[in-house]
Amino acid sequence: MGGHERNRLPSVLERDEVFRIRTRRTPGTLARVLTAIGEHGAHIGEIETIAITQEFNIRDVTVIAPGDQAVEAIRAAIAALDGVQLVAQSIDRVFAIHEGGKIAVRPTVDVHNLLDMREVYTPGVARVSRAIERDPSLADRYTWKGRTIAVVSDGSRVLGLGNVGPLAALPVMEGKALFYSLLVDLNGVPIVLDVHEPAKIAETIARFAPGFGGIHLEDIATPGVYEVERILIERLDVPVLHDDQHGTAVVVLAAMLSAARQLGRTPQSLTFGQVGLGAAGSAIAHLARAFGFSRVVAYDPDATAVARLEAISAREPGALEATSQAGGLDRVMAEADVVVFSTGRAGLVSRGSIRPGQVIAAITNPTPEIDVDEALAGGAIIAADGSIVNNVLAYPGLFRGTLDAGARRITIAMKRAAAEALSALAPDHDLLPDALDRRVHAAVAERVAAAAG
Amino acid sequence: MGGHERNRLPSVLERDEVFRIRTRRTPGTLARVLTAIGEHGAHIGEIETIAITQEFNIRDVTVIAPGDQAVEAIRAAIAALDGVQLVAQSIDRVFAIHEGGKIAVRPTVDVHNLLDMREVYTPGVARVSRAIERDPSLADRYTWKGRTIAVVSDGSRVLGLGNVGPLAALPVMEGKALFYSLLVDLNGVPIVLDVHEPAKIAETIARFAPGFGGIHLEDIATPGVYEVERILIERLDVPVLHDDQHGTAVVVLAAMLSAARQLGRTPQSLTFGQVGLGAAGSAIAHLARAFGFSRVVAYDPDATAVARLEAISAREPGALEATSQAGGLDRVMAEADVVVFSTGRAGLVSRGSIRPGQVIAAITNPTPEIDVDEALAGGAIIAADGSIVNNVLAYPGLFRGTLDAGARRITIAMKRAAAEALSALAPDHDLLPDALDRRVHAAVAERVAAAAG
Repeated sequence: MGGHERNRLPSVLERDEVFRIRTRRTPGTLARVLTAIGEHGAHIGEIETIAITQEFNIRDVTVIAPGDQAVEAIRAAIAALDGVQLVAQSIDRVFAIHEGGKIAVRPTVDVHNLLDMREVYTPGVARVSRAIERDPSLADRYTWKGRTIAVVSDGSRVLGLGNVGPLAALPVMEGKALFYSLLVDLNGVPIVLDVHEPAKIAETIARFAPGFGGIHLEDIATPGVYEVERILIERLDVPVLHDDQHGTAVVVLAAMLSAARQLGRTPQSLTFGQVGLGAAGSAIAHLARAFGFSRVVAYDPDATAVARLEAISAREPGALEATSQAGGLDRVMAEADVVVFSTGRAGLVSRGSIRPGQVIAAITNPTPEIDVDEALAGGAIIAADGSIVNNVLAYPGLFRGTLDAGARRITIAMKRAAAEALSALAPDHDLLPDALDRRVHAAVAERVAAAAG
Repeated sequence: MGGHERNRLPSVLERDEVFRIRTRRTPGTLARVLTAIGEHGAHIGEIETIAITQEFNIRDVTVIAPGDQAVEAIRAAIAALDGVQLVAQSIDRVFAIHEGGKIAVRPTVDVHNLLDMREVYTPGVARVSRAIERDPSLADRYTWKGRTIAVVSDGSRVLGLGNVGPLAALPVMEGKALFYSLLVDLNGVPIVLDVHEPAKIAETIARFAPGFGGIHLEDIATPGVYEVERILIERLDVPVLHDDQHGTAVVVLAAMLSAARQLGRTPQSLTFGQVGLGAAGSAIAHLARAFGFSRVVAYDPDATAVARLEAISAREPGALEATSQAGGLDRVMAEADVVVFSTGRAGLVSRGSIRPGQVIAAITNPTPEIDVDEALAGGAIIAADGSIVNNVLAYPGLFRGTLDAGARRITIAMKRAAAEALSALAPDHDLLPDALDRRVHAAVAERVAAAAG
């Protein structure tokens, strides 16, 4: 058990490169090409056959190489092979696919003639405006607002890259927006902000909020983002979600529920340990309490992070013991049956610290607190790393369910419903379902909407 | 000549209603239905045949009625007709077509499996982010930014409705956004702002501007919008256009060029008169100078509006005489060969004021300064009203051409190019081309891009 989670999240240094290769049609030629690629530490992606003739074949081979130097080395190696010709300059598939952006605005109405125009535009639209002026709730129905989420970042903490600024955050927000459309038929609109003070970020978002049915906060640095989130939840009458906290928490809890099920245990019989109380970790610890784990024990050396978790947790029931004291890590390892690490510290834990039978999720990217293999060698019964944390599993269904229910808040109960739905849909020996399966997201949305009622 | 411009812009009170009607299959039955509709002052829109049997026909008849009472009266009249049955509750087509909004965000990439996801999302997207961080100009190419326009309003001056607020402005901004997609393959994103102080509007837009390739300002009250526009043009490195000014000016100038051509005259041989120096009027007078009319004479009773026009015009060559003095209107009527009215004052001018042979455009909506028929009766050789001012003719091609050229400003030369392109494409006896013809917008974009060079 556990080996199914061994796929490491690939490094951001990797390149996807396409080589168009002409090979002589003799047995073993393509194999020699692939061997040469493998010898440079690269993986093979898609192989597309472009042409097959009596004498030769032409194929586009996608190579996932561990960096620019490896790409060059592979190119040279292929060129040196007998009976093999590199036909085309390699194309970087990643850049090719991002060319022109990943989303577009498209009409959902036909406008063929002036009569149509009178309806979608002036003068007809004026009647829709006046109706909304009289009854603002009609905007959800007669504009795109009711299906539209602003995906907002100031670019201050993007992926593993850090503070790259708003423009460099845009392709990431576009990626988030893409999955709203692809998976739950909502409109995700990427909005990147050239302002970084929390109160100003919140004020800016509140000013443009009237046109959106929900606000998805993404990749904004802590602790400022907590204030942004708090102000907006208080001020706006549409759902607001900081995905790095709550999306991550939903996915991790879903995976841990699946692990418990695979062990034949209920949360009530298990102690949940959380090491690292940043955005994700504090949300994970907070959400874990909602599942009725017998205890939730948490540790972070930063007393401020511990105090913040205690403050937000004080409002709700469920046992939570958090500490910043030295020895806190050892205590979590000694007491918890399920331990989630989100510390940002690669290799924090050695195999000797693992208690046999523990479930370990070490989600720091790109290098986890402990490798899956190490954790299993140390006695972990199930081990996972950051590759499980694909937030695309959570946020589309969370927002879709919230909007379907007409809810103005995404509550703990709704996040819990999302995690339970995800766990219930995981295949028998996996912790989570396929993120690209629309049925998964429909099920999450349905459960979230029901929990909103 | 001139009669082709008689279609009055319909009132915002009008309703488009669909009646599903079952008529006995005897000659003259449908005619009796249409007669009954006409007797209540309503127009017939589309007639869609739903079913034809041996005994009866079922048709959906769209009725453009002058208000709610007329709809009820027509319903009663149809129900009372012999051999006619009202099958279905009438549907308000306008509201039906706006249901769910008029635009959606759609993927432009395929995401079928985890390999695709690695490219559009993490980890691949991180490489795109880092490339943009190093070279911000790459954002135009590797995100949707280079094709995406924010259509921004605070809802303070929407159509003829006035200050309806941001939410009620949203369906109008969506309509504007729709035509970007439909006509020039750009992404229009409607953004409505819950802030109304000019400096704050500008600040808010500047903060979210990094994700957009252009800023389209719409339906923001004067004079504040002038300050918003000025700040943003100074501050941003993407094109900014206040459509109510410059879009309108381009369309009106195009129409006036067509009128001159129909008369066999050049602008150089004509005096251009502008009455009313609000957002549209001042932009029209300003742009008219660029066409080389022998003189541009303008009048507005508001000395501030006159001073503003003189200030913006002082920077550029071309004769302009503007006045707020009593008698200014009479002087324009006496001296100008082409007179454009944009005063907001219905029925301002009587037929006796028209000088025989003048070209008259009275563009105040819904009721012009002088009816087309009145103007023609007074001796105007060509007359038009607000129905010519369809800004959809101008802004899509203006922005598309600007983005195609990689230009950061929309200059007077580019607006002039747009007006000339529109006029050149007008059919022989019309002032303007078909706003829904994509070839028109492609031609405008091409001319604008060339003028940017």
